[in-house]
Amino acid sequence: MFCLLVLASSISLAQSDSMVIKQISDEIFMHGQAYSNLKYLCKKVGPRLSGSPGAALAVEQTARMLREAGADSVYLQPCMVPHWVRGDKEVGRALLQNGTSFPLNIVALGNAVGTPAAGITAPVVEVTNFKELDALGKEGVKGKIVFYNYRMDPRYINTFRAYGEAGVYRSQGPSRAAALGAVGVIVRTLSPVLDDHPHTGATRYDEQFPQIPAVAISTNGAVQLSDALAKKSVKQIYFKTNCKMLEDVLSYNVVGEIKGTEFPNEIITVGGHLDSWDLAEGAHDDGTGCMQSIEVIRVMKALGIRPKRTIRAVMFMNEENGLRGGNKYAEIAKTENKKFIMALESDAGGFTPRGFGFSATAAQKERILSWKPLFHPYGALEFNEGGGGADIGPLRPLGTALIGLNPDSQRYMDLHHAKTDVFEAVSERELNLGTVVMAAMVYLVSQYGL
Amino acid sequence: MFCLLVLASSISLAQSDSMVIKQISDEIFMHGQAYSNLKYLCKKVGPRLSGSPGAALAVEQTARMLREAGADSVYLQPCMVPHWVRGDKEVGRALLQNGTSFPLNIVALGNAVGTPAAGITAPVVEVTNFKELDALGKEGVKGKIVFYNYRMDPRYINTFRAYGEAGVYRSQGPSRAAALGAVGVIVRTLSPVLDDHPHTGATRYDEQFPQIPAVAISTNGAVQLSDALAKKSVKQIYFKTNCKMLEDVLSYNVVGEIKGTEFPNEIITVGGHLDSWDLAEGAHDDGTGCMQSIEVIRVMKALGIRPKRTIRAVMFMNEENGLRGGNKYAEIAKTENKKFIMALESDAGGFTPRGFGFSATAAQKERILSWKPLFHPYGALEFNEGGGGADIGPLRPLGTALIGLNPDSQRYMDLHHAKTDVFEAVSERELNLGTVVMAAMVYLVSQYGL
Repeated sequence: MFCLLVLASSISLAQSDSMVIKQISDEIFMHGQAYSNLKYLCKKVGPRLSGSPGAALAVEQTARMLREAGADSVYLQPCMVPHWVRGDKEVGRALLQNGTSFPLNIVALGNAVGTPAAGITAPVVEVTNFKELDALGKEGVKGKIVFYNYRMDPRYINTFRAYGEAGVYRSQGPSRAAALGAVGVIVRTLSPVLDDHPHTGATRYDEQFPQIPAVAISTNGAVQLSDALAKKSVKQIYFKTNCKMLEDVLSYNVVGEIKGTEFPNEIITVGGHLDSWDLAEGAHDDGTGCMQSIEVIRVMKALGIRPKRTIRAVMFMNEENGLRGGNKYAEIAKTENKKFIMALESDAGGFTPRGFGFSATAAQKERILSWKPLFHPYGALEFNEGGGGADIGPLRPLGTALIGLNPDSQRYMDLHHAKTDVFEAVSERELNLGTVVMAAMVYLVSQYGL
Repeated sequence: MFCLLVLASSISLAQSDSMVIKQISDEIFMHGQAYSNLKYLCKKVGPRLSGSPGAALAVEQTARMLREAGADSVYLQPCMVPHWVRGDKEVGRALLQNGTSFPLNIVALGNAVGTPAAGITAPVVEVTNFKELDALGKEGVKGKIVFYNYRMDPRYINTFRAYGEAGVYRSQGPSRAAALGAVGVIVRTLSPVLDDHPHTGATRYDEQFPQIPAVAISTNGAVQLSDALAKKSVKQIYFKTNCKMLEDVLSYNVVGEIKGTEFPNEIITVGGHLDSWDLAEGAHDDGTGCMQSIEVIRVMKALGIRPKRTIRAVMFMNEENGLRGGNKYAEIAKTENKKFIMALESDAGGFTPRGFGFSATAAQKERILSWKPLFHPYGALEFNEGGGGADIGPLRPLGTALIGLNPDSQRYMDLHHAKTDVFEAVSERELNLGTVVMAAMVYLVSQYGL
């Protein structure tokens, strides 16, 4: 009898959860604001790299959106952020043996130093990986520009895996080349498609070595340059970049909160990062994650759901070139005397959701996995080990279960950090469906804890 | 002992199948031709409605692509097809009580009759469904233009479900209105998004009733018209269409075949439809399905896979407004004295694959379901009851297992039958991933039968 009652109660619980999630889905597809908010963020705010006027406006506007979504309280967390500026558009040319030249489609890597005012002109040496670079040694590299022509492996089904492998040339390539005496670096764009759009992204200088100018070249440009080098027709490369790192400036994380009714000190964090590269509108990276997080607040309020635990939507500042916002959030969390039970980040694009990735304890994972059938109607079928997000990573020492939304990854790397990452590349329904599964996960944790 | 041997053998079988499928995937992602073929089809051939010069060129060019893919034989199946032409661009205006007017963003529905040369001008009556239409009766409808303002339900996660419900107004709406004496019909575009692109698509006249002109209006246009009607500011609607149905013309299905080594008389059909609406390039509908089917042939040949059963890639003609090609294929099949064991159609867009839908016997389904784990690495996790495709439907009486590729449906209805269905809306990786799972399914059936 007892068993039967428990069974009946757990069935009705599951039914009621699936009904609430259906209400969440209906509300989002009928009256969702994420898409129109994203349009505002992309078209009225635009690029918002840390320290830029766009970033300051984005702070102001997402605070407004959170208030309009009905958050109980909206506040800012001050933090100092790096302030890197690109300056005038970059110029590059391959200077040929026959006295002619062709243009190189380049952009400076984020955080990179610029060239002298006259640019740099030097012979170029092409490598496809670090092993080839090291084999060249100082005698092969000194005084030259190193061209890393590593092609992202198109065979991985998940494009983040290919990105992870290829990303080391952008992050470590300049310093590894500088260690051998190189004067500049050109990195093939991290994209699986051939086109004319160079993708930027942060590089990281190793303090041991000289900081040398570094640019990304479009994939088509990399192929063209490599072909010309194979024909031995290139004499030198010239490029000029105008970027520099200025003094740190004050910026903010933006937080909107619904206070929990029963366990207000158990905090659920849901967020994305508010900063975006300067080349585009930062639609998928990560306007969508921010707008989805605001929408999680809105849908709870619109449906009159009163969560037992506190829900915080957080717009993290400075994910792209410093992670100061994510670190600041965790630093403050450590002083709050609250339990940060779960953090969910959406920073893999606003594409149709495939599922989630989890970095959590066995007990946390077991509970989360018990909810998996509730996500089936919404196509979030893949519950995978490992995941989270750069901004929520610093919460891990607090025992927080980290969850990353995993949208379909096929289109992300085509436009990531490129000027094609614009509002028009986002599908309203895909964005909404991602929000539905985020809101469902937040709802379940808010009701049952972890 | 026997059991152990069987187990070992089935494990090695599964391992070898998963390795072959990985090779298929690698080949497609490294050297795939579907995307470049699609570019040709969209940009060099373009719209290819049955009977049009584009359709004739598409027959010629896909036969070439199949030969270049390495098909053992390529041939055409002649069939007569309807020849509907749109004529000059349609014009529509809402004529207001105050003497002014505003333009209506309309296109004629496919297969519809045109208006008289002077167009039609009549009062308009708005309904949201057939129940409201019938309630108006003859006295409310006679001499008027009926405006079906049925909004596609955005709450269904699968957009095909919403399309199915809304589609009756396009297909049956004109005749149901004509039965009550209407002189014309305006149907709200079948799209979940608000924009300015009217979507065409076939209507079907019931022979009992007069054939009246019928158009689709963009979703934004429908909202504007409905608002104006609510304010009682509209006096009459004027529209002029120039379409007509001409005599049937000769066209073709295009077939490319790899002959099976062991069971050449067991036929596996994989296809899409070659015709497309005249407003756009028919990229997702259904250039992608055709190019994927050709790629299935190419990848088998490129990898030196010699299938035990015969594989036929079929470009079906006239799915959009007659299904003559699909019917012809089945009609010929009945005379071939072969076993048509399986047919797989891709006609739901070239988006990232979610899985398959099956219309098959219990035994066929059981075998197919045993392969499901092989599709897991490629994200095709949903194996659902029901499915197939319009063109392969006529094979059902032959006992053929029908399988439909089910891509993610979120973006399809945004551009379906609209001028936005262009090459640029297709993602190379999504297209390729769909091809991978199609080729894997075809490979498995070719090796093991059904």
